[in-house]
Amino acid sequence: MKEVSKLLDYRKSIKVVDATLRDGGLVNDFYFTDDFVKKLYMANIEAGVDYMEMGYRASKKVFDESKFGKWKFCSDDHIREIVGENDTDLKLAIMADIGRHDKNDFDQKANSPVDLVRVAAYIHQLPDAIDMIEDAAKKGYETSCNLMAISHAQEEDMRVALDMLGKTPVDVIYIVDSFGSIYPEQMARIADLYLDFAAKYGKQVGIHAHNNQQLAFANTIEACGDGVDWLDGTYLAMGRGAGNCAMELLLGFLKNPKYDVYPVIKFIEDNMIKLVEEGIVWGYDIQYLLTGLLNQHPRTAIQFTKDKRKDYAEFYKEIYE
Amino acid sequence: MKEVSKLLDYRKSIKVVDATLRDGGLVNDFYFTDDFVKKLYMANIEAGVDYMEMGYRASKKVFDESKFGKWKFCSDDHIREIVGENDTDLKLAIMADIGRHDKNDFDQKANSPVDLVRVAAYIHQLPDAIDMIEDAAKKGYETSCNLMAISHAQEEDMRVALDMLGKTPVDVIYIVDSFGSIYPEQMARIADLYLDFAAKYGKQVGIHAHNNQQLAFANTIEACGDGVDWLDGTYLAMGRGAGNCAMELLLGFLKNPKYDVYPVIKFIEDNMIKLVEEGIVWGYDIQYLLTGLLNQHPRTAIQFTKDKRKDYAEFYKEIYE
Repeated sequence: MKEVSKLLDYRKSIKVVDATLRDGGLVNDFYFTDDFVKKLYMANIEAGVDYMEMGYRASKKVFDESKFGKWKFCSDDHIREIVGENDTDLKLAIMADIGRHDKNDFDQKANSPVDLVRVAAYIHQLPDAIDMIEDAAKKGYETSCNLMAISHAQEEDMRVALDMLGKTPVDVIYIVDSFGSIYPEQMARIADLYLDFAAKYGKQVGIHAHNNQQLAFANTIEACGDGVDWLDGTYLAMGRGAGNCAMELLLGFLKNPKYDVYPVIKFIEDNMIKLVEEGIVWGYDIQYLLTGLLNQHPRTAIQFTKDKRKDYAEFYKEIYE
Repeated sequence: MKEVSKLLDYRKSIKVVDATLRDGGLVNDFYFTDDFVKKLYMANIEAGVDYMEMGYRASKKVFDESKFGKWKFCSDDHIREIVGENDTDLKLAIMADIGRHDKNDFDQKANSPVDLVRVAAYIHQLPDAIDMIEDAAKKGYETSCNLMAISHAQEEDMRVALDMLGKTPVDVIYIVDSFGSIYPEQMARIADLYLDFAAKYGKQVGIHAHNNQQLAFANTIEACGDGVDWLDGTYLAMGRGAGNCAMELLLGFLKNPKYDVYPVIKFIEDNMIKLVEEGIVWGYDIQYLLTGLLNQHPRTAIQFTKDKRKDYAEFYKEIYE
């Protein structure tokens, strides 16, 4: 039976992270207007969200600044233009994507409005990730590590990775279902594995889900029930490919009175429906189900979507290995 | 740990029921073309689906025949026009909706292509439902009972209902999440309750889910893992309001080699995308999330959809009790 099984009670240690700008930015190349970002920031405050991820802090040596909106780079100055010194209960996060980051872009925490640096890495990039975590922690940031694509990792490699992370200053270790291929029953076992290492080393555990098989919310509340405390959501599930766990589903589920789903609904109505109407495309569709089912990176499905193809059966044959 | 937890193995007792025409018919007033129905029938055979629900057998005393497609009434003759004598492994089902049925419309099984009569009832209609079950069983049909809207029922009433059903000739008792309000963790407890009574009386248990909170598939595989054998799905999740558990997700998950998701994908591509393009609307949307969250009948959300409203926040205020 799950820890939150009474469903009427809640766990105060739960943290909700809004990843709309960061994972959603992958859909529109981070071209969010300042007005959108400001209103999202206000909605998160009203909704009781704990952390707002402002975007990636990608290296300008790797990406051409002229080809992306500013939330791909997320400078402290850009963030301050929206939030000032952020004198609120909402904490701010940015993501460092290992191999596409430059740790010199991260100032001392004392000089930055950012609270949390989220380090995203594939398991084979772990030494680089640890280097980044240690640097960010030394500068005074909270840190998390998002271990991506774990559905392609061997369990023994996972154990080694969790043990290595346990010995770093990282605060939160994230389960990331990059391909949306994990079923809730598997999520329960993965959560148990992460929570074992977290307990040993005094870390917290998070969950970042994708909706390829319409399981992003289900996997998130499964993990939550198993004891995972950090829960990622995005407004209207906006995120790469099939999108993420919808914030509106997540806040509807959580019972802590600090959370309020109404500002999320209102923000979606006022600011996100128009993105959809403008032709920004994300969310569950057959092509994402198929890559999820086959435990594959969604890049082929994203291309299928961009090409406005509808020949799902042919696509299935193309990607079937 | 779930019974199917190895995920690579499968349980031969599982039955997949295609409810596209019946629950999907609620979206388009049952105006499916014969061509559509025939191709769906062929797709189900190729996909290894166990039962195909052809529609309701609604009483013509209650509904005006001129206002609905024929799958609302589903005469044996209509069915034979599609399937002949159905000399296949796919069994056929029809639904009797208690209060809107007439048991005199059901011939002896020996004269009918129908195998299974599914009796749908609210818990307060149970005596009527039992009368119908006994009549259909005496005529030679397999029978199931779909107890609707159980999220509004008291547990003790449920126990009484399950005990009453246990003493009838009914073969399968269905868990029905009419409002899409049940979380997987609750589903596990409900499944345990049903399975206890089923074991006592030698019945099987089924699950019919709705997708208001994007949990139809998650609840279906939760119940499956708990030991529920009869699993309803609909192609492209077509069904009332937020729709049902998508057949393409379900067959992708099930590992029995008799099931093949490819014919489902192909049928969707060839026959269902055009329904969507023609303006037939169903599936997850914010208004259904809100009625699901509040454990309400989706009728207000269906009206909101019909009215092409997008003022979700106002709607939330309207339905908040």
